[in-house]
Amino acid sequence: MRRRDRAGADAPADDARRGLSRRQLLLGGAVAGAGAAAAIGADAVARVATAAPAAPAELLHGDAVVPFHGAHQAAFTIPPQAHATMVALDLLPETDAEGLRRLLRILSDDASRLTQGEAALADSEPELALVPARLTATIGLGPAAVALAGAAVPTWLAPLPAFAIDALEDAWSGGDLLLEVAGDDPLTVAHAQRMLLKGTRSFARIRWVQSGFRRSHGAEAQGTTMRNLFGQVDGTVNPQPGDADFDGLVFIRDGWLAGGTSLVVRRIRMDLDTWDRLDRPGREQSVGRTLANGAPLTGTREHDEPDFAALTPIGFPVIPEFSHMRRARSDDPSQRFHRRAFNYDERPAGASVSESGMLFTAAQADPLAQFVPIQQRLSDLDLLNEWTTPIGSAVFAIPPGCEEGGFVGETLFG
Amino acid sequence: MRRRDRAGADAPADDARRGLSRRQLLLGGAVAGAGAAAAIGADAVARVATAAPAAPAELLHGDAVVPFHGAHQAAFTIPPQAHATMVALDLLPETDAEGLRRLLRILSDDASRLTQGEAALADSEPELALVPARLTATIGLGPAAVALAGAAVPTWLAPLPAFAIDALEDAWSGGDLLLEVAGDDPLTVAHAQRMLLKGTRSFARIRWVQSGFRRSHGAEAQGTTMRNLFGQVDGTVNPQPGDADFDGLVFIRDGWLAGGTSLVVRRIRMDLDTWDRLDRPGREQSVGRTLANGAPLTGTREHDEPDFAALTPIGFPVIPEFSHMRRARSDDPSQRFHRRAFNYDERPAGASVSESGMLFTAAQADPLAQFVPIQQRLSDLDLLNEWTTPIGSAVFAIPPGCEEGGFVGETLFG
Ligand code: HEM
Ligand code: HEM
Repeated sequence: MRRRDRAGADAPADDARRGLSRRQLLLGGAVAGAGAAAAIGADAVARVATAAPAAPAELLHGDAVVPFHGAHQAAFTIPPQAHATMVALDLLPETDAEGLRRLLRILSDDASRLTQGEAALADSEPELALVPARLTATIGLGPAAVALAGAAVPTWLAPLPAFAIDALEDAWSGGDLLLEVAGDDPLTVAHAQRMLLKGTRSFARIRWVQSGFRRSHGAEAQGTTMRNLFGQVDGTVNPQPGDADFDGLVFIRDGWLAGGTSLVVRRIRMDLDTWDRLDRPGREQSVGRTLANGAPLTGTREHDEPDFAALTPIGFPVIPEFSHMRRARSDDPSQRFHRRAFNYDERPAGASVSESGMLFTAAQADPLAQFVPIQQRLSDLDLLNEWTTPIGSAVFAIPPGCEEGGFVGETLFG
Repeated sequence: MRRRDRAGADAPADDARRGLSRRQLLLGGAVAGAGAAAAIGADAVARVATAAPAAPAELLHGDAVVPFHGAHQAAFTIPPQAHATMVALDLLPETDAEGLRRLLRILSDDASRLTQGEAALADSEPELALVPARLTATIGLGPAAVALAGAAVPTWLAPLPAFAIDALEDAWSGGDLLLEVAGDDPLTVAHAQRMLLKGTRSFARIRWVQSGFRRSHGAEAQGTTMRNLFGQVDGTVNPQPGDADFDGLVFIRDGWLAGGTSLVVRRIRMDLDTWDRLDRPGREQSVGRTLANGAPLTGTREHDEPDFAALTPIGFPVIPEFSHMRRARSDDPSQRFHRRAFNYDERPAGASVSESGMLFTAAQADPLAQFVPIQQRLSDLDLLNEWTTPIGSAVFAIPPGCEEGGFVGETLFG
């Protein structure tokens, strides 16, 4: 990740208010550079100059840029942002393979600009593009789009097998195309989403839109695992970009999807009203971890290894057999995937004071080999099922990233 | 505003991960303190120690606390936060004056804790309360609640007069009580909203919920005026807490509302699809300011004084007569109010790619004398009306703040 050189862009003229040009601020020396890296995310700041002007650097996370071009689509190379909107689209009947190719080109072109803090080509509100805040725009394809292009449709690119726990609603399921817009600023995400959707109007119509959030940028110490709306520390055991086994688990090796991945999107309602009635030990046992800091019930720190053999004085496992953590963990280390979850909290209906849940996503090279066995285990038995219900489900092929001049999805066309 | 001493609270035990206790970090010396003030908002950080440990301060906006107690409810004493949810409630038929008093006590008690980064008394997810991020919880009263308590109902505490531009929907209008939860972190806001609403269940039911956002905390330089979804710089000419005339314009002087204010809440749909078809000069003329930096069309910088007498070479006013800025400005300086607006961006329906607008609020001592004349002028003539439609409207009495041991609304009961 690097910081945007705002002085080089079509920036607002009100520089006096900012004191110095952003460029000067960004080149504020190595110390400032280190601060910037700490302030904006896991990755280093690329621009660290050796010259050291007197002014202290003003570090704005709004300026942080995630490169659009590369081997993989960018969202799978960074820690998740604070806000995400996922839009599923259905292709119009009149859209043919050439239309799809044009659509993917337009989306890639707009995304390559917007994510870099630049206006899209036909941007109607160019000023709203100037605060990238780690914006990423991810493009995914459903089976109909892949077939339309004449490419091989992977076996896994289909609705997941039905699970007993599912109560899926059409309104949150399926889709020919996925557009995921994520960033640390909600205004930027809203603008980018709209600009990207404008480009799709002649080719596709919206099927569903789902938005979610995590902690705001900089609210907590870097590396703090997010909490979900149950109050649980969520994401502790999760292969992360940069981990030794991440690429092998997540990225596809062969064919037109080489360098790409698959994305399972599940909308999971969390019944906070009934969850509230469960006592604290019950809640902790349902997952196998403490609420205070997410430590396994056999440990004291979040990242302690759980001891599944430990027994209570009266002989029960300390981490219950049917706890979510235990059920979600397979003996087979290949049955893992990269989770990115966003909380949702909608207008409550009726007597409820909440309509909440999780926009759960899992990325893996092969959903049938990695995700489905775990989801099946959880569907069979998982204490958490009492308070959670999958109400939406979709699977998308995520093409690899592209280089400058190319477009996401180009490998589809052979 | 001050920073929360997280080490003194029931903090997660995972301190090693954070390196040092938060307390040590917060007491990192005067330089760090100055940085903190810059990082978290307009106000100074209260805790700046003289001792200077070696570790650099880690400044997290999640720790920033706005005092709950005081002469005014806190939201009217600080720059607006990044996220806000407004909930209107209707009292249940069985709720009597004593019930209302109990409800207000419970809400104040919960709010006094949650805003300070502490769990509410019956908090079911206490860990979600530990990141206050400038949380405020504001309580407002509709006419029915004031009458129920037996207090004087101000003349202005009623639906606004009907304006020709209005297309009000019941779903976004009216209400016996208002709860506004605002903060810089969306997870904190969601949690606080739910905890506060739980306390209302036996007394009231939800009438409407509206959420909105501004720029995320720290994305832009401090003091940057927000942009709305039209891309306009919005909020340039607006009395701010701390301005010499603010208290006189906003706070009520006499009666049970002394120290309180009134809040007009308008939901205004912005038609981005048709706005996009207008050219840039047309957009700038509709407001009378540039899109690049919000400068008046007769100036170059945002805060330049507009020159309403300036004419174009062919004799037209440079700032059109019917521009929003010109119409929204009265010759009578008492016809002003404090605006706080939050963008909303909902799931689009049909062929539209957006369902967007502004959750507009205006605070003033007397809506009939200050707000209504301006809204009437705008309704009569305002170029912006072409693309904006008020679809919701409500007026609430905002009681003064309370001291420790008291509760918001106590003055209602004589
Ligand atoms: C709303 C629904 C869900 C909630 C509230 C939830 C919550 C949690 C929590 C609190 C943990 C422990 C901390 C951690 O390691 O992240 C966890 C772990 C995990 N969850 Fe979930 N989860 C949900 C759904 C799912 C689903 C649908 C799957 C996959 C099918 C899944 C897979 C996992 C995995 C693989 C782990 C790590 C297990 C290990 O320790 O090896 N979760 N989840
Ligand atoms: C979606 C609807 C609206 C939009 C997009 C909008 C936009 C703007 C913009 C861009 C400005 C210029 C910058 C500034 O000084 O803030 C402005 C100024 C202003 N607006 Fe609005 N506005 C809207 C609704 C309203 C309403 C309903 C009122 C009050 C009834 C209002 C009252 C004002 C006032 C008092 C000013 C300052 C005028 C001055 O320069 O003295 N606006 N608005």
